[in-house]
Amino acid sequence: MKLHLFAAAAVVVAMGAGVEGQPGPQAVRSPEVAADRRVTFRIAAPKAAEVQLTCECFSGSKAMAKDDKGVWSVTLGPFEPDIYEYEFTIDGVTILDPRNEKVKYNGRPSTISSLLEVPGSGPLFYDARAVPHGSVDIRWYQSKAVNGIRRAYVYAPPNYDRGSSRLPVLYLLHGADGDDSAWTAFGHANHILDNLIADKKMTPMVVVMPFGYAYPPAAGAAGDRQRTDFEKDLLQDLIPFVQANYRVFTDRSNRAIVGLSMGGGQALNIGLRHLDVFSRVASFSGAVPRGQAADSYNDVLGDAKKLNTSLKLLWLGCGTEDGLFTPNKEFSERLKKAGVTHTFHESGGAHTWSVWRKYLLEVAPQLFPTT
Amino acid sequence: MKLHLFAAAAVVVAMGAGVEGQPGPQAVRSPEVAADRRVTFRIAAPKAAEVQLTCECFSGSKAMAKDDKGVWSVTLGPFEPDIYEYEFTIDGVTILDPRNEKVKYNGRPSTISSLLEVPGSGPLFYDARAVPHGSVDIRWYQSKAVNGIRRAYVYAPPNYDRGSSRLPVLYLLHGADGDDSAWTAFGHANHILDNLIADKKMTPMVVVMPFGYAYPPAAGAAGDRQRTDFEKDLLQDLIPFVQANYRVFTDRSNRAIVGLSMGGGQALNIGLRHLDVFSRVASFSGAVPRGQAADSYNDVLGDAKKLNTSLKLLWLGCGTEDGLFTPNKEFSERLKKAGVTHTFHESGGAHTWSVWRKYLLEVAPQLFPTT
Repeated sequence: MKLHLFAAAAVVVAMGAGVEGQPGPQAVRSPEVAADRRVTFRIAAPKAAEVQLTCECFSGSKAMAKDDKGVWSVTLGPFEPDIYEYEFTIDGVTILDPRNEKVKYNGRPSTISSLLEVPGSGPLFYDARAVPHGSVDIRWYQSKAVNGIRRAYVYAPPNYDRGSSRLPVLYLLHGADGDDSAWTAFGHANHILDNLIADKKMTPMVVVMPFGYAYPPAAGAAGDRQRTDFEKDLLQDLIPFVQANYRVFTDRSNRAIVGLSMGGGQALNIGLRHLDVFSRVASFSGAVPRGQAADSYNDVLGDAKKLNTSLKLLWLGCGTEDGLFTPNKEFSERLKKAGVTHTFHESGGAHTWSVWRKYLLEVAPQLFPTT
Repeated sequence: MKLHLFAAAAVVVAMGAGVEGQPGPQAVRSPEVAADRRVTFRIAAPKAAEVQLTCECFSGSKAMAKDDKGVWSVTLGPFEPDIYEYEFTIDGVTILDPRNEKVKYNGRPSTISSLLEVPGSGPLFYDARAVPHGSVDIRWYQSKAVNGIRRAYVYAPPNYDRGSSRLPVLYLLHGADGDDSAWTAFGHANHILDNLIADKKMTPMVVVMPFGYAYPPAAGAAGDRQRTDFEKDLLQDLIPFVQANYRVFTDRSNRAIVGLSMGGGQALNIGLRHLDVFSRVASFSGAVPRGQAADSYNDVLGDAKKLNTSLKLLWLGCGTEDGLFTPNKEFSERLKKAGVTHTFHESGGAHTWSVWRKYLLEVAPQLFPTT
């Protein structure tokens, strides 16, 4: 493909992205993962006085050291196979790794990060394996609740198009600053589910991933309106859209709601208050109600018998290093005191996708068990 | 939504993304687009000696000025409504705008940019309008050509699920460093097509957006193997997959191939050499063959009669400010000399998505005209 290499070089020049014969910063490789899973981070910043690294793979920050060419680096680890977020801070300015094309985007600029992927010796539970794959459909629908167009991601399991039977459906919510693409882009939800289905550990289901804000957070809509209209959109616009466009069961016993962080709070808030709509509710590292806000749950938790009869699964998980661990533990105790049957899954880990991928692996098979 | 605001604040703290009562850089807003379409770019970098801005919205770079709080800024424009890529350079290190969540990712880190969206007074041709929307399906398929799993994006026009008639199909290729998501993420192809269909300017069609590399460029596969296996995957794996999973016509007269930059070169190379498969070929700012590489086209161009009879559309477009303009003009002259009927569309603009969005708007209606 001389032709294409030639063309690519032309494109490079056309885009002003590099100057031939002058490799300089272009030659810097970062992050570099060695066979022993130690990782070298590098950045060319000849004029900087101080460069630091923060990463989910360790606590705090690490100083990087400059070589005689102005390239800063540090080698750390070995790290467990996983996907980690990291950033550089150059003289007080926090930036992405300019040599890494893997970016975790977000709705709030201060939470955009670079991604470090430390591979395992074989495919991990969230990797794309050589098994049948479901599709992820990006759908747009008209929402009366917000009087506009909204987007949702929908996972349809492998061979969905060839089937004829109806499937259960999971509404899967992202966290603060995320969007409807987050669960597939960073949670690898589709690959986790493909693998579970291939291994016959899970009933095939349709998974709907809505945009968890009624209005873009930057638009500054009042909190009450955000909450009310998101719930209205979900119940009155999105669920009917899904039922009109996908071969799903339409009864509560085949409908689940699960979310992470802000979405965990939403799953509890909407799920526990709409037992006529959902029969399974789970919260991952959820922004559970606490303090005075928790009192608004007194009514709901007052009828433990109704909750216990209606819910086939009520699952809360949180990592012990998560700032939300104590609120989650307290909410679980509140549920316990009220006599509400539930699982409280205490795990290691912080407020990270590493935890949420594992929780999905844990919970998805429990949602609609075949036996 | 007191509950959720409360929770969101907790999440902020848990993620270490901000410290209350100390706004500092968190308060910096960038980019800020005023009503008159002038734009202010800002970045907090108190210790930096020099900060510059590069943007597709102007040529060269602009110096930014520091205020007494260490925030650098510059106000420019007004700019035409469009989407522009830009970057900051701090003391020689080129970085994204840390305050802007809109990121143009890419397969080569040096071409990742921040995105500036200058809105029009109403929805632009590439904006999501209140019209019926097609879906964008992210599909995975097994590829014998590369002996692995590959991903493709597929646009199905509005109400596809409710229809029963077969549709023509366009294979739409991205450029160097892009991927299968680029045409929807940055090209807004789905919205452009939704709008054209709503305005009855275009025959509804299925649009398949493959990953334009047989192997990830970083994997370092030989160029010949990249080219050969990509073509093999497209012809022998992807087209059959699409025909098995979408209601498309399977004859050449309903199949088109179009690409931008590297993908434009691919569209010409594959399209002109497989007249039994494609009846429409277009190249946007294409990496056309030139010099000795162009001689490999002598055979193809030698039979102008066959090309002219077979191709219902052969379209080349390039912007006069594009580094590839001269090669494109020369290739057009070569076609002309060989007697090959084609359109050479000379436009303003450089090697940017701004140009490619407009070209798709221009070409999509010409692919399968109803009359």
